[in-house]
Amino acid sequence: MRVLSGIQPSGQLHIGNYFGMMQPMISNMAEHELYAFIVDLHALTSVHDAQRLATGTLEAAVDFMALGLEPERCIFWVQSDVPEVTELTWVLSTLTPMGLLERCHSYKDKIAKGIASSHGLFAYPVLMAADILLYQAQRVPVGKDQKQHLEVARDIAIKFNSLFGDTFVLPEPVIDADLAVVPGLDGQKMSKSYGNTIPIFTGEKELKKRVMAIVTDSTPVDEPKDPDRCNLYNIFKLFAPADRLKEVRDLYLNGGAMYGKIKLELLELLWEYFRPARQRREQLLADPGQVRDILRQGAEKARAKAAPTLEEVRRRVGLRY
Amino acid sequence: MRVLSGIQPSGQLHIGNYFGMMQPMISNMAEHELYAFIVDLHALTSVHDAQRLATGTLEAAVDFMALGLEPERCIFWVQSDVPEVTELTWVLSTLTPMGLLERCHSYKDKIAKGIASSHGLFAYPVLMAADILLYQAQRVPVGKDQKQHLEVARDIAIKFNSLFGDTFVLPEPVIDADLAVVPGLDGQKMSKSYGNTIPIFTGEKELKKRVMAIVTDSTPVDEPKDPDRCNLYNIFKLFAPADRLKEVRDLYLNGGAMYGKIKLELLELLWEYFRPARQRREQLLADPGQVRDILRQGAEKARAKAAPTLEEVRRRVGLRY
Repeated sequence: MRVLSGIQPSGQLHIGNYFGMMQPMISNMAEHELYAFIVDLHALTSVHDAQRLATGTLEAAVDFMALGLEPERCIFWVQSDVPEVTELTWVLSTLTPMGLLERCHSYKDKIAKGIASSHGLFAYPVLMAADILLYQAQRVPVGKDQKQHLEVARDIAIKFNSLFGDTFVLPEPVIDADLAVVPGLDGQKMSKSYGNTIPIFTGEKELKKRVMAIVTDSTPVDEPKDPDRCNLYNIFKLFAPADRLKEVRDLYLNGGAMYGKIKLELLELLWEYFRPARQRREQLLADPGQVRDILRQGAEKARAKAAPTLEEVRRRVGLRY
Repeated sequence: MRVLSGIQPSGQLHIGNYFGMMQPMISNMAEHELYAFIVDLHALTSVHDAQRLATGTLEAAVDFMALGLEPERCIFWVQSDVPEVTELTWVLSTLTPMGLLERCHSYKDKIAKGIASSHGLFAYPVLMAADILLYQAQRVPVGKDQKQHLEVARDIAIKFNSLFGDTFVLPEPVIDADLAVVPGLDGQKMSKSYGNTIPIFTGEKELKKRVMAIVTDSTPVDEPKDPDRCNLYNIFKLFAPADRLKEVRDLYLNGGAMYGKIKLELLELLWEYFRPARQRREQLLADPGQVRDILRQGAEKARAKAAPTLEEVRRRVGLRY
């Protein structure tokens, strides 16, 4: 199976990203043909700051590689390094009904949140369709909010195939409903926009501040508590070894669980859990030239995969005179 | 001055195109730096027929070269052979307000005429802005209907320059109001959509049919007529040598102008006027490989001009990590 995943180049990764998106993506390297790319062209619809975008792109690459994405076991590149995708975007635009885009919730939601209604924001799903179709991706894991965009990509592919002959694989969305939603400090879903995250790569001091800020209830220590309804426990269980988790669970059930102590233990677990990634990250950041080389090699691989499809598209629509 | 002109790849050229658009364009070769290109990517918004588009593109190239466009004295290429323009289109999209496009008359007019409202049609002015800005064109001769699109290109350039620093030349529209509008067979402006054209490249029999169909009034031969209000005369004067035109004008003013005779004379003038072009056209059509080579060389020249601008754009917006 050819699986395609886009990576936003913006911001500090947190453990919600890690369990909700990165781990499942990275695990695709083993069984599937993974196409993973950093969507800097899409990011342009909200970032108009060159320094921020460029740094965000490079750091996203570094973070993903540090956390286990192996460029030699997948195709890993930066979207704008394969500009062919914008050519396909134009071709697809010419057969995308306006109504299809006007119905997209994501655009309307972003406008409602105060993002300026640029044409790029409106055209976002067409670029996304081009990303998917250019690489003939079969499966595209997406969050619920992106499901409609996948449908747009399918609709465009169906229209192209019916007008010009079978060209594109129809992509299937993979909605990972099973995935554990990682709770944030306040018990809501962990999300940058809620400001309730535990960042993966941050200093020990900041990490401690965040962990100590996990909201817990005020049940006295000796009384029994329901671990499954405890925010702290639900984060703790992601990192604790099984035997220790069992002990802590028993403390919750029988009384004796001290939140402060568990937090300090969690802090240590977190710090250790990401230690290898932190070290790899430092090595990579020390040699950005090497990271750029890796990305450029990835772009070459992606281009080679894209080229036959794009050439077929050009021929089928009449751009080869 | 750098002057840029787009050429539609669709349909049979007529003498209205010749005097209204081609001659002025071709005359730019002498004083200006002419950038002339066949807009196949734009044509995709209305043509979904590969054969028609591809043939139209090649024939437009042949027709323009036959009629005097000299590829070695300008930059002459097919739009889609410089796909970089679609990359710039995306970047510009991300700073094009939706309202700017929603206000474009041309889109609304096309919808009103029953053309399906695709996203490509809506995004048409952004691709046009990219065409203009990518080559840093200073002057863009356009018809009145395209003036608003030029303003869109200027607005986008101003916005880019103010957000990211001076990058783009602001293009000036050149509205050729002075240009003689060539009357069609029925006296309206000659236009394919009115079905009142005299094609440049057509068989002698068809040409005769068209010329004989020029509408004239029923004033008796011996009576004086106003030449300037006569459709036939207004076409005749485009082709007749000065001394002969003087004679015919006198016949109009003093009586004795026989429409039938003048039509036959016009037919001969037309046939002779375009004889060299017709011969060049046949030579070019006999060797399409050579035409393709010329266009590819043109695309190389255009690409070389576009490259530094595009690279600067990428750097300024943060696509270079």
